[in-house]
Amino acid sequence: MPVTLTEAQKRLFTDGKNFIFLATLMKDGSPQVTPVWVDLDGDQILVNSEQKRVKTRNMRRDPRVALSVQEPGNPYRYLEVRGRVTEITADGAAAHIDKLAKKYLGQDRYPFNQPGDVRVIIRITPEAVSGM
Amino acid sequence: MPVTLTEAQKRLFTDGKNFIFLATLMKDGSPQVTPVWVDLDGDQILVNSEQKRVKTRNMRRDPRVALSVQEPGNPYRYLEVRGRVTEITADGAAAHIDKLAKKYLGQDRYPFNQPGDVRVIIRITPEAVSGM
Repeated sequence: MPVTLTEAQKRLFTDGKNFIFLATLMKDGSPQVTPVWVDLDGDQILVNSEQKRVKTRNMRRDPRVALSVQEPGNPYRYLEVRGRVTEITADGAAAHIDKLAKKYLGQDRYPFNQPGDVRVIIRITPEAVSGM
Repeated sequence: MPVTLTEAQKRLFTDGKNFIFLATLMKDGSPQVTPVWVDLDGDQILVNSEQKRVKTRNMRRDPRVALSVQEPGNPYRYLEVRGRVTEITADGAAAHIDKLAKKYLGQDRYPFNQPGDVRVIIRITPEAVSGM
């Protein structure tokens, strides 16, 4: 069942430039965890990745994910979220990575695209939230 | 197969007070991720937890874990580790959490013990390392 985030919880994702640490499942069921940029859309957590990346392929295969985020300057305020990927789409993903580049790098365009890269927006619906 | 860490990789764990984000597997195989204090013993990564915690029970059931750590002040330098829990022991764990309290809190004794708590040292052997 989807859960909602409080305003204080949302600020951990939207204030500052902190990364989330996103855990996905490898093909053999073992976990993988990686720091990524983050965006929010209401109560849903948006990540932007390239479609060939290990984490993207993991989330296409098994939508179960977990993530954690700390408050910058106060690591004892943090959030743990378990949830499910409910959409992976290329629609709007090129503009979305530019939006994240503005937030995290202060640049209008994401500078790390490689030829042939296809960005995707990964939408995560939280199902359990703890911490703080 | 165990892998070794470079000196630069080790410094991400030992310099400063940064946490690692540790991913474990729930009973249903879904991931869980949580920020924790960290220590190193050679190439092995040590975490200290209470034996009843979800993450401790997860690692007793399934030793497959992943973790990630960022360099303080430079989030674009980070490490991703996948590995396996090779020991969970209460031996020395009370002294070890005091050592971590000194590192992270500047206190000689860990101040958060509850009556009946049993600390355990969780030893993680890295099997794959990427990033930086």
